[in-house]
Amino acid sequence: MILVLEQDASREQVDRIVTMLEKKGVKVHYSKGVDKTILGLIGSKQTLSRLPVERFSGVEKVVHVSEPFKLAGRSFHPEPSRIRVGEVVIGGEDPVVIAGPCSVESREQILETARSVKKAGAGLLRGGAFKPRSSPYSFQGLGEEGLKLLAEAGEETGLPVISEVMDPENLDMVKEYVDVLQLGARNMQNFHLLKKVGRADKPVLLKRGLSATIEEWLMSAEYILNEGNPNVILCERGIRTFETHTRNTLDLSAVPVIKHLSHLPILVDPSHGTGKWRYVAPMSRAALAAGADGLMVEVHPDPESALSDGPQSLTLENFHSMMKELHQPAVGMQARQNA
Amino acid sequence: MILVLEQDASREQVDRIVTMLEKKGVKVHYSKGVDKTILGLIGSKQTLSRLPVERFSGVEKVVHVSEPFKLAGRSFHPEPSRIRVGEVVIGGEDPVVIAGPCSVESREQILETARSVKKAGAGLLRGGAFKPRSSPYSFQGLGEEGLKLLAEAGEETGLPVISEVMDPENLDMVKEYVDVLQLGARNMQNFHLLKKVGRADKPVLLKRGLSATIEEWLMSAEYILNEGNPNVILCERGIRTFETHTRNTLDLSAVPVIKHLSHLPILVDPSHGTGKWRYVAPMSRAALAAGADGLMVEVHPDPESALSDGPQSLTLENFHSMMKELHQPAVGMQARQNA
Amino acid sequence: MILVLEQDASREQVDRIVTMLEKKGVKVHYSKGVDKTILGLIGSKQTLSRLPVERFSGVEKVVHVSEPFKLAGRSFHPEPSRIRVGEVVIGGEDPVVIAGPCSVESREQILETARSVKKAGAGLLRGGAFKPRSSPYSFQGLGEEGLKLLAEAGEETGLPVISEVMDPENLDMVKEYVDVLQLGARNMQNFHLLKKVGRADKPVLLKRGLSATIEEWLMSAEYILNEGNPNVILCERGIRTFETHTRNTLDLSAVPVIKHLSHLPILVDPSHGTGKWRYVAPMSRAALAAGADGLMVEVHPDPESALSDGPQSLTLENFHSMMKELHQPAVGMQARQNA
Amino acid sequence: MILVLEQDASREQVDRIVTMLEKKGVKVHYSKGVDKTILGLIGSKQTLSRLPVERFSGVEKVVHVSEPFKLAGRSFHPEPSRIRVGEVVIGGEDPVVIAGPCSVESREQILETARSVKKAGAGLLRGGAFKPRSSPYSFQGLGEEGLKLLAEAGEETGLPVISEVMDPENLDMVKEYVDVLQLGARNMQNFHLLKKVGRADKPVLLKRGLSATIEEWLMSAEYILNEGNPNVILCERGIRTFETHTRNTLDLSAVPVIKHLSHLPILVDPSHGTGKWRYVAPMSRAALAAGADGLMVEVHPDPESALSDGPQSLTLENFHSMMKELHQPAVGMQARQNA
Repeated sequence: MILVLEQDASREQVDRIVTMLEKKGVKVHYSKGVDKTILGLIGSKQTLSRLPVERFSGVEKVVHVSEPFKLAGRSFHPEPSRIRVGEVVIGGEDPVVIAGPCSVESREQILETARSVKKAGAGLLRGGAFKPRSSPYSFQGLGEEGLKLLAEAGEETGLPVISEVMDPENLDMVKEYVDVLQLGARNMQNFHLLKKVGRADKPVLLKRGLSATIEEWLMSAEYILNEGNPNVILCERGIRTFETHTRNTLDLSAVPVIKHLSHLPILVDPSHGTGKWRYVAPMSRAALAAGADGLMVEVHPDPESALSDGPQSLTLENFHSMMKELHQPAVGMQARQNA
Repeated sequence: MILVLEQDASREQVDRIVTMLEKKGVKVHYSKGVDKTILGLIGSKQTLSRLPVERFSGVEKVVHVSEPFKLAGRSFHPEPSRIRVGEVVIGGEDPVVIAGPCSVESREQILETARSVKKAGAGLLRGGAFKPRSSPYSFQGLGEEGLKLLAEAGEETGLPVISEVMDPENLDMVKEYVDVLQLGARNMQNFHLLKKVGRADKPVLLKRGLSATIEEWLMSAEYILNEGNPNVILCERGIRTFETHTRNTLDLSAVPVIKHLSHLPILVDPSHGTGKWRYVAPMSRAALAAGADGLMVEVHPDPESALSDGPQSLTLENFHSMMKELHQPAVGMQARQNA
Repeated sequence: MILVLEQDASREQVDRIVTMLEKKGVKVHYSKGVDKTILGLIGSKQTLSRLPVERFSGVEKVVHVSEPFKLAGRSFHPEPSRIRVGEVVIGGEDPVVIAGPCSVESREQILETARSVKKAGAGLLRGGAFKPRSSPYSFQGLGEEGLKLLAEAGEETGLPVISEVMDPENLDMVKEYVDVLQLGARNMQNFHLLKKVGRADKPVLLKRGLSATIEEWLMSAEYILNEGNPNVILCERGIRTFETHTRNTLDLSAVPVIKHLSHLPILVDPSHGTGKWRYVAPMSRAALAAGADGLMVEVHPDPESALSDGPQSLTLENFHSMMKELHQPAVGMQARQNA
Repeated sequence: MILVLEQDASREQVDRIVTMLEKKGVKVHYSKGVDKTILGLIGSKQTLSRLPVERFSGVEKVVHVSEPFKLAGRSFHPEPSRIRVGEVVIGGEDPVVIAGPCSVESREQILETARSVKKAGAGLLRGGAFKPRSSPYSFQGLGEEGLKLLAEAGEETGLPVISEVMDPENLDMVKEYVDVLQLGARNMQNFHLLKKVGRADKPVLLKRGLSATIEEWLMSAEYILNEGNPNVILCERGIRTFETHTRNTLDLSAVPVIKHLSHLPILVDPSHGTGKWRYVAPMSRAALAAGADGLMVEVHPDPESALSDGPQSLTLENFHSMMKELHQPAVGMQARQNA
């Protein structure tokens, strides 16, 4: 950690800081430049992270030299993590596709979707039972009934299932029905919920927050890992920017960045990322090309009558043709020349 | 509500949409332009908000003509809401200042702060007991012990107290100790929590989310109002942008915008908004000049040793001199000329 | 075009607006809803775009139903545009790679790079001679001398060359040396320059502005097309967001969006998009997978001594291995399974 | 300047960097921490700014300890700059208001406005003659004719005038007619134009770019100062964010930040900042309360028929009542209590 001091920091201020730090067992390198004085702090990540250095009088800027995450970082765990869900491995050689409707709406809807996406090659079935909606007047999900239907569809098709837990009070109930717990973008910094799923014995899919930096995202993963649950799957779903043509701005660079910084697997959700079904297939191809470990895609047998997120859902047919295309050795320059 | 149809929408698609809408009791105005066809939908806000129009095949764009909030809107409630907390009125003639430390750290710290800010003219005492922190390794607050100390300091000084509730499971406990429940920026769309505080019998201070639009913010207020709690106080605390010199970008325009759209009172938190104590006083003056109903300011007897958010906290002295200045008939062109 | 009127718009205001519009030859559809009154305006894009409707008293919101661009739009020109530069076609079946250093620094540097990228399969050679730099103290490019060296390297290798024109006064000179004129992100709304290159007889590569929406970007292309130059190539190079790990946020969704809205070809610049050489190869693969017509990549024989943008430049070796990889029929699910 | 090395930087890499730096006359402090090695570089700002350190192999991060601007900074020039335009001083005790229409449209329009704003207390008259417009089909200004009318109105009323220069080729012409040269947001990084106005003998008003950081803005001022023109006036006019209710997000915190970092005066443009006339008065009050040296406000005798930016223009009456209010010793807590 480096402290850049204010230009007019007094001798006394500097001495006071150094004394304070040394008392805490931190070694301090003093370095006087032309304009500014800087202090290099050497100590364990633990010790340094607890120092209230930003409030020391005379300190202008604090530069963190080490990443603030440890358990989520590559240096702690150089090999990529592979997370097993039933017979599926997320983070292995093969990309995994999670597919299904935004919300479970009825037995027919979820069963029809499950059978169809299974056939097309999906590895997991998704379906929301508790839906975060901006408006209190919008459909909020079927609740436990939705989870039951989802579990039933999973059982019938042999697909493991995933659904969002929005609320610590429901965690135990949700856990009963699902194979993977999903934490939504709006809950990425719901620290109480992070800790609770960190003590659960199910893998957790952690979506990136609407305006979360990659570092903050990894820190939220750190909350879960730190409670003892090693099975965290990241999911990029678009960030909020000034662009309005797409619902969010899908930040695909996050894929190689996460691969560089962390051992955790990363999926991409092009449905929320773009908000328009038309762009889901090209962005799915792009996500895999960037190195994503898989996709999370919204599929609905009848998007027009969907009770939530219809405009971004693929029909069963669209999903089949996208999956077919993704299985072809397609992208690259030569390939396109021959196509 | 207006539907703009895709240029190549077929006769059948249009007919299907119109039939579907009329069945739901919606009147449809059909209008064919040079390039595009548009449908004007006329019906109650309730009915319209439940239509899955965005997923209708052939629809390119949906334009919402009415605001999506009702209870929070000016048309529903033309007079500004005044919220009474003890002897203080938020939303009345006099701006109200909420002051206190980011976190309650000890009896001495909170008592000393309470006495001092009371003397300087603060109307409420703030102090965090449960702290949302990006890192699991940072100080997370004293918990219930912190609330007890806060309540004690409130009682001694006669200041009503406010503290953040982060978690539905703790709501009952927090409610016992505080006069106003605070919902933090990260929880602005924690819908379960919104509903729960909507059923509580205490006023709620709702901070704007880091990347929430003003409309989304009012929709979150709508969640609380819709559960029966009319006492919602909004608090602008800065949004996330590309600018890095300040911790957030304090969006003071939100003040007149909220005053135009809603009857709810709005406070401004320049401490989180700027992240640097140096900018707290000028932005406090600006907030009041923009029409804010008050301020929420972090004050600490010894910011250098604060366990959280020290760099943005005012010392007791700084707070006193700011309050003195705010009480002077100071700002405006003539005033400055004479100063 | 649709006008949503203010809730309290008076009968007189409405009449005045309608009269004014009808005088201009616009047909008006009047539609009174429960809360709001809306007016549908029917007329040619030309006529409508010149109406000062947003300032009419009583108008709350104006909704543009048609896209504001015409020449750049798909409806005007349904077939994708193919732009020929020497023997290379941009927008055809084969993706095209533009490669070369950020700045031309010396004859050796540009010649060595040109020979190497040619061998690796690049289609055009890039090299800056006039560099936009945030600081007046940074290297600003070799100027005309740089253009000469670039042209020489192009001639020797047979690669067409591209370089940025920053200033209308230099346009004639730059045009002498290059095959494609580049307009940088900071000049995307330098309207004078847009008009001038619109009258030039060379193709123009138009980079997206740091905070430009896709619609604004297409409107800037419209400026060029409107002056008579049909050869506009778009280039996505990342937008500015709150994320700091990457230099910009590469918005790959812009690729399918542009393909949907426009007939113009689109390239992607992953070097500026990410700012780090490490992420250039995966984002290049992703860009092609998303459907980009090619890439623009910074390559330098010795990035460490580069006078600008070294951290995002590939070495010659890195570029060769990336190109080799891009030529393999690589990405897709099956492909990865077999790899 | 500080270099943070990559964790796996080799002994040779470090030696190579140190040798390279010492050859350039830079003193290097070597400091080995638990995880990372850091190098502190000591040398003149000039020398350091020219080092291609970011490209050195083995360097992970470069931390700039000193501000990159010198001439614009407070340390170079501790006293605030006062810029005299005719009899008006910008940056002195009294706030200055620049008022006038977005575009000069006719002699009557500009004369009527000039007389009216003069009477209300405006210090300068604004009026655009060359207008940057997103669409090539929108009104682009009257050109030189507009400048003539503006100059005439200025002469008649005794108000100095300001107008935007968009294009280096027009600079000499614009300079003939105006007292202050305006550089628009879209040209904040038009470096050629910055240099040219830096050699002009007229004060320059430099608007902040739509997505420019405060540091980049000051670097653009540095370009002008570095060419010898000391008379730079900054103008905050809103930045681009995700919020759509206002046209831009007016970043009033920029006012105290600029006051802290720089000696240059800063104005605020609430018309572009909010895009809606309704919010201009409260944000004007807030800007002055934050410490701005003045305002730039759009005023039009008939905003409904304005050829550009009508929705954000005040009528003459609105401007008068705003100015009257701004001259009253109005804002502050006590003041409000008595109001």
